Amino acid sequence: MRPASAPRGAPSLRDKKPDALTTMSIKFDIVDVPIPEGANVIIGHAHFIKTVEDLYEALVNSVPGIKFGIAFCEASGKRLVRHEGNDEELRKLAVDVALRIGAGHTFVIYIRSAYPINVLNAIKHVPEVVGLHAATANPLKVVVAEVEPERRGIIGVIDGHSPLGVEGDRDREERKAFLRKIGYKL
Amino acid sequence: MRPASAPRGAPSLRDKKPDALTTMSIKFDIVDVPIPEGANVIIGHAHFIKTVEDLYEALVNSVPGIKFGIAFCEASGKRLVRHEGNDEELRKLAVDVALRIGAGHTFVIYIRSAYPINVLNAIKHVPEVVGLHAATANPLKVVVAEVEPERRGIIGVIDGHSPLGVEGDRDREERKAFLRKIGYKL
Amino acid sequence: MRPASAPRGAPSLRDKKPDALTTMSIKFDIVDVPIPEGANVIIGHAHFIKTVEDLYEALVNSVPGIKFGIAFCEASGKRLVRHEGNDEELRKLAVDVALRIGAGHTFVIYIRSAYPINVLNAIKHVPEVVGLHAATANPLKVVVAEVEPERRGIIGVIDGHSPLGVEGDRDREERKAFLRKIGYKL
Amino acid sequence: MRPASAPRGAPSLRDKKPDALTTMSIKFDIVDVPIPEGANVIIGHAHFIKTVEDLYEALVNSVPGIKFGIAFCEASGKRLVRHEGNDEELRKLAVDVALRIGAGHTFVIYIRSAYPINVLNAIKHVPEVVGLHAATANPLKVVVAEVEPERRGIIGVIDGHSPLGVEGDRDREERKAFLRKIGYKL
Amino acid sequence: MRPASAPRGAPSLRDKKPDALTTMSIKFDIVDVPIPEGANVIIGHAHFIKTVEDLYEALVNSVPGIKFGIAFCEASGKRLVRHEGNDEELRKLAVDVALRIGAGHTFVIYIRSAYPINVLNAIKHVPEVVGLHAATANPLKVVVAEVEPERRGIIGVIDGHSPLGVEGDRDREERKAFLRKIGYKL
Amino acid sequence: MRPASAPRGAPSLRDKKPDALTTMSIKFDIVDVPIPEGANVIIGHAHFIKTVEDLYEALVNSVPGIKFGIAFCEASGKRLVRHEGNDEELRKLAVDVALRIGAGHTFVIYIRSAYPINVLNAIKHVPEVVGLHAATANPLKVVVAEVEPERRGIIGVIDGHSPLGVEGDRDREERKAFLRKIGYKL
Repeated sequence: MRPASAPRGAPSLRDKKPDALTTMSIKFDIVDVPIPEGANVIIGHAHFIKTVEDLYEALVNSVPGIKFGIAFCEASGKRLVRHEGNDEELRKLAVDVALRIGAGHTFVIYIRSAYPINVLNAIKHVPEVVGLHAATANPLKVVVAEVEPERRGIIGVIDGHSPLGVEGDRDREERKAFLRKIGYKL
Repeated sequence: MRPASAPRGAPSLRDKKPDALTTMSIKFDIVDVPIPEGANVIIGHAHFIKTVEDLYEALVNSVPGIKFGIAFCEASGKRLVRHEGNDEELRKLAVDVALRIGAGHTFVIYIRSAYPINVLNAIKHVPEVVGLHAATANPLKVVVAEVEPERRGIIGVIDGHSPLGVEGDRDREERKAFLRKIGYKL
Repeated sequence: MRPASAPRGAPSLRDKKPDALTTMSIKFDIVDVPIPEGANVIIGHAHFIKTVEDLYEALVNSVPGIKFGIAFCEASGKRLVRHEGNDEELRKLAVDVALRIGAGHTFVIYIRSAYPINVLNAIKHVPEVVGLHAATANPLKVVVAEVEPERRGIIGVIDGHSPLGVEGDRDREERKAFLRKIGYKL
Repeated sequence: MRPASAPRGAPSLRDKKPDALTTMSIKFDIVDVPIPEGANVIIGHAHFIKTVEDLYEALVNSVPGIKFGIAFCEASGKRLVRHEGNDEELRKLAVDVALRIGAGHTFVIYIRSAYPINVLNAIKHVPEVVGLHAATANPLKVVVAEVEPERRGIIGVIDGHSPLGVEGDRDREERKAFLRKIGYKL
Repeated sequence: MRPASAPRGAPSLRDKKPDALTTMSIKFDIVDVPIPEGANVIIGHAHFIKTVEDLYEALVNSVPGIKFGIAFCEASGKRLVRHEGNDEELRKLAVDVALRIGAGHTFVIYIRSAYPINVLNAIKHVPEVVGLHAATANPLKVVVAEVEPERRGIIGVIDGHSPLGVEGDRDREERKAFLRKIGYKL
Repeated sequence: MRPASAPRGAPSLRDKKPDALTTMSIKFDIVDVPIPEGANVIIGHAHFIKTVEDLYEALVNSVPGIKFGIAFCEASGKRLVRHEGNDEELRKLAVDVALRIGAGHTFVIYIRSAYPINVLNAIKHVPEVVGLHAATANPLKVVVAEVEPERRGIIGVIDGHSPLGVEGDRDREERKAFLRKIGYKL
C-alpha cells in the first residue's frame, strides 16, 4: 500500500491516453554503410562540434600511422556535416554516410591501418561522446527513425548476419588457437 | 557446410518460424523533451535505485555550483520515479520527463551552470550506469516502444535536426576559430 | 544565410525522396529474456570473437567466486554463438538467449553471486565492447529489428515495468535508509 | 644556442646555488606494515576527508561481502586519522598503520574476502585519489621522509623481496598453467 | 629448491656487488610550493611537450570558468619549461615552481574557481600522463633527488602535516554532517 | 585545543620516539636504464604474476605491429623475473633492467613501433597495475632504496635533464606548429 507516500499530484501513467501513442507518424529508414577493403567503421552519438577535433586527437593518439575520416552531424545552427581526417577516401565516405543517416549528433568514423579494438576506449572516453552504436568491418545497416521531416535518429544497427548455430568443442579449440596464433592471447 | 563443428542440438535460426515475429504488438510513442533556457538534458539507462544518489554525487563532484535535477524510473517493487537534485525547477522537469517516457531503468538529468562535456565521463563511470541515449540542449524527442501496457523502453532519440549540407573550407575555418575563441582549443 | 560555405556538391537531405524510406521491410521481434532466481543478465554489443575470452577475464577479475555464462553472436565467417563461462546453467541460458536474439555482435552475460554494479565498469572498458543495452534482474524483453532474413539488430530493451508514480518524502527516506541498511552508503 | 627563444628573465637552474640543497634536514623512516592472514593492504594518496566515504563506496560497489578497514590522514584542520570500514580488526589496523606512517593525505586500506585486482580500478577512479603506492599481501615496508617535525611524506615502498633469478621455460609453463588452473585465464 | 627452473645464465642479485650502491652521490633538495589564497596545486609526471596543450584541454573541459596555469619541464631537446593557462598569476607560479623543482617531465598545475576533485580524473586520463604526486591546498614541500648536475627527479611530497590523533565518534558525526551540509553527500 | 573530539587512547605522533627513525639503514642505489634507438621504456608497479600476461594483452590490443618486451619482479614465492614479449632484444633488456632494479612488484616494458602515448591508458587500467613511475625515451635513472638485503623499492626516477629556461613566445609558436606539423593537433 502506498498512499502515505503517494505522488504529489504527478499524473500516473495509468492515466495516459492511448491516443498519445503516435506510431503512425514514424517512418523507418535503413541506411546501408559500405565497408571498403581493409577498413572498419565506427558509428556513435556525441554533442558539440568540438567532437570532430577531439575524435581526431583520440585517433592519432591511439595508433601511429592510423588512416581515418570522421564526420559529425551538427544538429542545430548551421547544421553541417563537420569533418576531419587524414585520408581523403575515408573522409568522403564518412561524410556521405553521415549525410545519408541524417541524424542529429551522429558521428561516423572510418579507420584503416588500425582496428576498432585499438581506438574504442579512447573514443568512449572523449568527454562529449555519449555512446556508440557499432564498430565493425561487417556489412552494416543503420536503422533510422524519422518522426517528422528533418528529425531523424538512429534506433539500431544490423551488424553482419545472424548466427547459424552454436560453437562446439572443436570450434572452441579453433577459436582459442586462432587468437593465440595471431598473437592476441598467450 | 559446417558438420565438423556442428552445434550440439541447438536450434538454428533458420528454423525460427516467421510467426515468432510480433510486429503487430509494438506501439511507438514519441516523447517531447523540453529544454529550458540555459539547460541541457542527459538521458540514460541504469539499474538500481542507488542510481539517483550516485548520479547526484557524480554531478557535484564534477562542477562547483552546478544546478541539476535527476529522475530515475524504478522498474520493479514500488516502481516510483526516484529523484534528487539541488534545483527544484530542474528536478520537477526531470521527474515529469521520466514519467512521460515511462521506461523502466531510464534516468533523466537536467543541468544548468554546467555542460554535458563537464559531467559525461563521470556519469558514464557510475558503476550502475549501463549507457547513455543523449546529452543535448537541442529540441529532443525520445522514441519509446511499448510492447504491452506498462512495458516500455527507449529505442532511440531525435536530437536536433538533420544536416543541411557539408562543411566547406570556410565553415571549417570558422569552426576552428570559434573553438579557439571560446577557449576550448589553443 | 550560408551560400558562402555551401556544401560542395553534397546532396541535401531535402532532396531525399520519401520512397527511400523502407518502413515496410522491417519486422520487429520481441525476445523474452528469462531471469533465473538469484541471477542478473547483461546484454551488450561488441565486435570480435575475442569478446568471449576478454569478457571472461573481466568477470573473474571483478568478483571472487562469481558464477557466469557468456555468449556472443559471431556476425561473419562461421557465424557461431561463441561461449564461455564457469556455470553450465548460466552458459546454456546465455547461448539460448543469444541465439533467440540472433543479432550479429550481440553478447549476453548471466551472472550469479555478483551484481551488475560489481562488473559493469570492467565490461564497459573491454576494448572491443561497443556498449551495453541492459543490466538487470527484472523481467526483460529485447526488441529486435529484422530487415531481411538473418539480418537482425537490437533496437531497445523493455527493462521491468513503467513507473506507477513519483517518490514522495517518505519514500525518499525509506530509499535512503534502505541503501544505508544494506551497506552501500554511510 | 638558444638566444632567439631565450627565457624572459626567468632564472636558469644553472644559477641555483648548491646551498639550496638541504639533504641534511631529511630523516628517512621505515614503517613496517603487517599483513594479517588472508588480508591485502593498499596504500595511496588522496586529498579531502571525503576520501574515506568515497573509498568505502568504491569497495562495497566492487565485491559483495568484502571486508575492509580504511584510514586517511587528514593533513590540515583537526588533522585526525579519519576511518571507515565494516571489519573492526582491519579498521584498527588501517588506523594504526596510517598513524605510524604519519604522512598527510595518505590512505591505508586493508581488505579481506577480496583481492586488490577486484578493487584497484575502482579506487584509482575515485575523484579525489591522486595515486597508489602499493597493493600487496607481501611483507611491506613504507619509506617515509621527514623534513621537519610533523611534516612527513611517503617516498616509496619495499614490496616483498628482490628477485632471485629469471623465469625459465619451465617456470613460464608453470605460471601459465597456474593462472589457468585457478581460472584467471582460459 | 629451484634448480629445475634455474635462470638461464641470468646473474642473480646475490652477485651484485655492494659497491654498486652509490648513496654518496645523491643530494636531496626540498622545494617549497606556495599556495595562493583560493588556489590548489597539482603536481605530476608526463612525457611529451604535448602535455601542456592536452592538460589545458582537460581542464577547460572539466569546469566552466576554471582559472589555471600549467607548466611542464621538457626533459630533452630545448629543455624549456613549457606553459599554458588562462590566468597569468597562476601561470607564472606554475612556471616558477616547475623551474625550482627542475625535474624532467614534471608538470605543475595551479587551479582556481575549481577543486582537484573536479579535474583529477580528466588529468589521470590524459594519454601522456604517467601519474600524480599531489593535489592539495595544503602547504606542500616536494622532495627532489639530484643524482648529478641537472639530473633531478621527484621522490615524494610532504602534503600538509602529520595527524595529531584518531577520529572519535563525535568527529565522525561532524565529518559526515559537514560533507552533507556542503552538498557532497546526501 | 581539541579535547571535544579527542582521540580515544590513540597514541599521538608527538609521542613517537625519534629513535624510531632508521635513516642509517637505507642505501640508495641508482640504476641506469638504457634506451635503444627507436625504443621507449615504461616502468611501473603491479601485484600478481598475472601482470606479464595482462600487460602483454594491453599492448597488443593497443597498437597493431607493436614490438615489446615485458618483465615483472615476482616479490614472493619463487621470486623470478617473469617475462613476456614479441621482440627478443626488448624482452632481454626488460629482464635485465628489472633484475638490476631488483624491487619487488616492479615491471619494466620496452616498446618499439609505438609510443607511450599509445599504450599508457591501457596499462593504467590493467586491474593489477598500481601505478607508473616513468614512460620515456630519455636517458633514465631509477633511484632505488635498499632497506635491508633483498628488500628494495623504487623511490623515484630521473627522467632526462633539468630545464634550462622558460619557453618564450617564439618557442611557444614553434611548439604549437610542431605538434600540428606531425599531426597531433589541428
